[in-house]
Amino acid sequence: MKAFMNEEFLLTTETGSRLFHEYAENCPIIDYHNHLSPKDIFERRRYENLTQLWLECDHYKWRCMRVCGVAECYITGEASEFEKFLAFAQIMPRLIGNPVYHWAHLELRRYFGINTPLNADTAKDIWDKTCAMLSGDGYDAVSLLGKMQVKVLCTTDDPADDLCWHLKLAQDNSVPFKTLPSFRPDRFLHIDQQPWKTALSQLGDRYGEITDWSSLLAALGKSLDFFCACGCRVTDHGFIRFRYAVGDPAPVMAKAIAGESLTEEEISVYQGALLRFLAAEYEKRDLAMQLHLGPIRNNSPRLFATFGADAGADSIGAATDPFMLSAFLGDLEKSDTLPKTILYNLNPADSAMLATMAVNFSSNGAKVQYGAAWWLHDHIRGISEQLDQLMETGFISASVGMLTDSRSFTSFTRHEYYRRILCDKLGALVERGEYPCDMEFLGSMIQDICYRNAETWFGF
Amino acid sequence: MKAFMNEEFLLTTETGSRLFHEYAENCPIIDYHNHLSPKDIFERRRYENLTQLWLECDHYKWRCMRVCGVAECYITGEASEFEKFLAFAQIMPRLIGNPVYHWAHLELRRYFGINTPLNADTAKDIWDKTCAMLSGDGYDAVSLLGKMQVKVLCTTDDPADDLCWHLKLAQDNSVPFKTLPSFRPDRFLHIDQQPWKTALSQLGDRYGEITDWSSLLAALGKSLDFFCACGCRVTDHGFIRFRYAVGDPAPVMAKAIAGESLTEEEISVYQGALLRFLAAEYEKRDLAMQLHLGPIRNNSPRLFATFGADAGADSIGAATDPFMLSAFLGDLEKSDTLPKTILYNLNPADSAMLATMAVNFSSNGAKVQYGAAWWLHDHIRGISEQLDQLMETGFISASVGMLTDSRSFTSFTRHEYYRRILCDKLGALVERGEYPCDMEFLGSMIQDICYRNAETWFGF
Amino acid sequence: MKAFMNEEFLLTTETGSRLFHEYAENCPIIDYHNHLSPKDIFERRRYENLTQLWLECDHYKWRCMRVCGVAECYITGEASEFEKFLAFAQIMPRLIGNPVYHWAHLELRRYFGINTPLNADTAKDIWDKTCAMLSGDGYDAVSLLGKMQVKVLCTTDDPADDLCWHLKLAQDNSVPFKTLPSFRPDRFLHIDQQPWKTALSQLGDRYGEITDWSSLLAALGKSLDFFCACGCRVTDHGFIRFRYAVGDPAPVMAKAIAGESLTEEEISVYQGALLRFLAAEYEKRDLAMQLHLGPIRNNSPRLFATFGADAGADSIGAATDPFMLSAFLGDLEKSDTLPKTILYNLNPADSAMLATMAVNFSSNGAKVQYGAAWWLHDHIRGISEQLDQLMETGFISASVGMLTDSRSFTSFTRHEYYRRILCDKLGALVERGEYPCDMEFLGSMIQDICYRNAETWFGF
Repeated sequence: MKAFMNEEFLLTTETGSRLFHEYAENCPIIDYHNHLSPKDIFERRRYENLTQLWLECDHYKWRCMRVCGVAECYITGEASEFEKFLAFAQIMPRLIGNPVYHWAHLELRRYFGINTPLNADTAKDIWDKTCAMLSGDGYDAVSLLGKMQVKVLCTTDDPADDLCWHLKLAQDNSVPFKTLPSFRPDRFLHIDQQPWKTALSQLGDRYGEITDWSSLLAALGKSLDFFCACGCRVTDHGFIRFRYAVGDPAPVMAKAIAGESLTEEEISVYQGALLRFLAAEYEKRDLAMQLHLGPIRNNSPRLFATFGADAGADSIGAATDPFMLSAFLGDLEKSDTLPKTILYNLNPADSAMLATMAVNFSSNGAKVQYGAAWWLHDHIRGISEQLDQLMETGFISASVGMLTDSRSFTSFTRHEYYRRILCDKLGALVERGEYPCDMEFLGSMIQDICYRNAETWFGF
Repeated sequence: MKAFMNEEFLLTTETGSRLFHEYAENCPIIDYHNHLSPKDIFERRRYENLTQLWLECDHYKWRCMRVCGVAECYITGEASEFEKFLAFAQIMPRLIGNPVYHWAHLELRRYFGINTPLNADTAKDIWDKTCAMLSGDGYDAVSLLGKMQVKVLCTTDDPADDLCWHLKLAQDNSVPFKTLPSFRPDRFLHIDQQPWKTALSQLGDRYGEITDWSSLLAALGKSLDFFCACGCRVTDHGFIRFRYAVGDPAPVMAKAIAGESLTEEEISVYQGALLRFLAAEYEKRDLAMQLHLGPIRNNSPRLFATFGADAGADSIGAATDPFMLSAFLGDLEKSDTLPKTILYNLNPADSAMLATMAVNFSSNGAKVQYGAAWWLHDHIRGISEQLDQLMETGFISASVGMLTDSRSFTSFTRHEYYRRILCDKLGALVERGEYPCDMEFLGSMIQDICYRNAETWFGF
Repeated sequence: MKAFMNEEFLLTTETGSRLFHEYAENCPIIDYHNHLSPKDIFERRRYENLTQLWLECDHYKWRCMRVCGVAECYITGEASEFEKFLAFAQIMPRLIGNPVYHWAHLELRRYFGINTPLNADTAKDIWDKTCAMLSGDGYDAVSLLGKMQVKVLCTTDDPADDLCWHLKLAQDNSVPFKTLPSFRPDRFLHIDQQPWKTALSQLGDRYGEITDWSSLLAALGKSLDFFCACGCRVTDHGFIRFRYAVGDPAPVMAKAIAGESLTEEEISVYQGALLRFLAAEYEKRDLAMQLHLGPIRNNSPRLFATFGADAGADSIGAATDPFMLSAFLGDLEKSDTLPKTILYNLNPADSAMLATMAVNFSSNGAKVQYGAAWWLHDHIRGISEQLDQLMETGFISASVGMLTDSRSFTSFTRHEYYRRILCDKLGALVERGEYPCDMEFLGSMIQDICYRNAETWFGF
């Protein structure tokens, strides 16, 4: 029996272990998609305790607490910070096989040197120890990222954002990594959703009033220029249903501004036109376009009413329409406006479709990538399956690897989690005789996947 | 090499073996969903031979026989009982890797003490031995269930049923387990299918004539009261396509009574309204609502014409629409009428969607469960995948575990099959260092999943 | 650690190894579906080098080269044959875990006796050695197939084809295997696609002018008679979306001839009627009907414009509608016109649906088969999953096994790949105690799957 989460955690062969320890373990990190707060970074936010660090906005953990019967007051409610931590600690042993279980214990080890399993009995002691450490040196937001050798961070930002914290960070030479904004125009794409009008008005305030299709494009173009001036290399887009159609968006937009309701076809026309415009602008500026496909959000009316979005009531939604996706990418290719693209799926039923679709457009430098296992699919099986898909399509060596997609400053051990699974998988292939034991080549390929490919592909 | 189906069957690690033998093996059984006949129980039905016990209505076995080329006369036709048994025994060795193969051999071992593999050579001897045992003590329907430590059984019953056998069983103190009815209003939901009108007429005969929407609700309400008076704790609903829409069902029902055909949208409105009504009534009475999603039925016109339904021509159908399911559960939650719910999928392409959807509504005591691998998905891979989903969502410790969904009095070794897979999975996690070796906690959690959670959650 | 791709490649247990080496390894091959050129066979085409053999039309390899950043001139462009081979050799080490990696090395071993891994360093030496061998005896098209013990080959042919090379081959007694045509009427089914009119005109030239529905059926009937006279036993049909509806196809066809565009429903009516007609004709002639479901084709407009179809821009498309498929098979069964059928899926999300659907219609000799893992799903995981599905449905012993679906004369080691996975899977079951160690029975069943079932089922 292997000891609990020791140095050989997730490594089942000698070859996999060597690949991890000799090549992957000490690679720096490029985290090209996350939801960290640039304000927290600039202000070197400090955390008094693990509740602030772990439970303030981590809906992964909230979901686990809810299904284990923890009352909402200990999750998003009025209980004290220690009570909340204790409530979480109490359910920890029930999270066997859950990535939250592994992530939390990796974080205790790597950030705090604590190897004890967290549970009701150890909670007070771990609370006290971590509180003490958090009050000392090396635990502000910048130091936590520095500990993990983070080199580049891409946050997620609205086109109407003034990026003031990014601007300040750009002036601050004491931060040992780059914090770059990412352009995420979701509110502008989802013409059928309530925040669309607010978004137009906010963007209009910064870049000129938006009254129709052409003024929308003008304002978005200016925003993109500003993002690029602030170092932006990446954009992002989320879709409950990916819709795409070709048609004239101007009258659709006029209807929406007039407050009329739209048909599915009209929404598809608008989204299709806006995506084509944006993609072409990205391509011009050499920005990468991320498409996150397939969640279903805010399913619980109770949580939405009491808490709002991101309450932990999002889940895996419908499979993606391959015809619409192919038409979109194809139209971009035809007009020479296809930017570097990453396709992410939440529903594992989409994995093979997306992984093979990416290859259709991936000539000359892996232009369209199949992205890392995402969100509710980001667990051992999910990561393992994404790597299998990449190997089965021949893409693995060109992959830009892992990202955290996280709101937490200690979540960067997820890169370690990914790297262990990657090294174990390749090591096992070698030991089964399915690949020659060329450690140097494999080690270098692993470093490409863990770090160098992202650096080159995104152009950081 | 491990001996064939010995005590360590499906157990690949020492830890898994200990978890099974020390904690799971001797847990009693709550089988909260099956299709057993309460009449057979009350009458302590006896079986003369394995054909009566195994082949009378087991369409799993029929399907296997058909694909192996056995002629229909040996399956559902006129051949003698021994000839049918022999035909089944002859194809047994061809069923490598099939759950029917494992189930049959587990049943031979646990009910008859026979460890010999069944095949053409051993068929006569096994037939003779089992015939002799079946004619002796301990092989009537009640004794067969008692042997497996069954504590609660929930059968499947139509709202128009008079539950006469359940009433008799409630008076019979010599039966060492509870046999409770389950409310299954499928015929009333499927307004587009032929049995709908008969169902209305039969329910009307017991609870007052049904001429419109309100008289339908009144009659179903009375039926539910009667079911509850008979100990009902569970309801069940099967969907080829889960449809849900909000609208006025009264005119739809009037059209259907008048014999007019309905649109997809009208069917969705009717089903949506009836489901909302029923769910609220369940919630009031603290009944659990089961939703079985995704089969496609009676695919073979030949078998349907010669045999009727449940001939073994049902299979895995379409994926479920997550938007409709979310709207249904959300509307219930909004109106405080969401009952305890279990979501089951037949198509594995739905697994991740349903497992994560359940969590959206699972606060405060795991209200919405992701149910055990069902029917054609109930094999080693299917069971294993359901457990993975439960672990990946944090739900595993709150799961109500396994059920047989069976028509057979000897199918209760399926609980053993499930328990072995569960213990092996958790044991392997421990031995790989992915979880601490806390046997007492794990053992207790396993007993929760195998027995105690069902007792508490359903309130038996 | 196991040596790279040695005799025990993919075999992880003693039992699996014995099953492969004692039973499967030396079975002859029936390759009942491929895209080989009968002209190349008749002319005993010779290859000067591995580029001609491997890279001339293998879009699997092209896709791998593109995602690894190889410029198109080294793939389908003007570079020299050696340069192309070198470009492929250079990326080989990056294809870890890809079937192309294993296939290429199996081909080097079995056809050329070369055990060295192919990469940039070994490329020149392997090129020279293989060029030398290819110029000697035993490397023409017929000899390459003979080396693999091929007994029957079914090519893929258009109904308008004159089958001249098949006719010549039928006269040539020196070829040690049968080369039979397969009837593939795709161009005639896809009334909404551009080649439809050309197809009508070409078929009309051979079998009488096609002006309407009835003249189309007459011509296709004559073509089928001719194919049967040339030894045809198999037909094939590919569907991006499988559509099926019942209605009158004559007016739809009239519209299409008049150049009017068709609705989805009209296409479904036409395809449904043509499939029903064809299926009945197949059944009459005892031909097998293959349905290949779920690719999405020609996704890259750039590659389609510069190269045309089959450029390596096809991928995995949408899941198949089970209701339409069931209606089609059911209507055939009802009218006693259901031919032997094989269902293949490209999207793994369809696997369980199709595998269980096949069984609904598989009585009396496995009439409807669930086919081998296909194309982009034909890798270790895909093959393994198809075998799991076959075991879980009880079908495994009746399966007609593997086919290459290949354009390459050296791709027949894919049968070895499949056989190793099959033997390993069954051997592992035995060693885990899930099946008795009856080597003779298992060995014979494996030979059935690898060879004898195809011989009998197709009637070669």
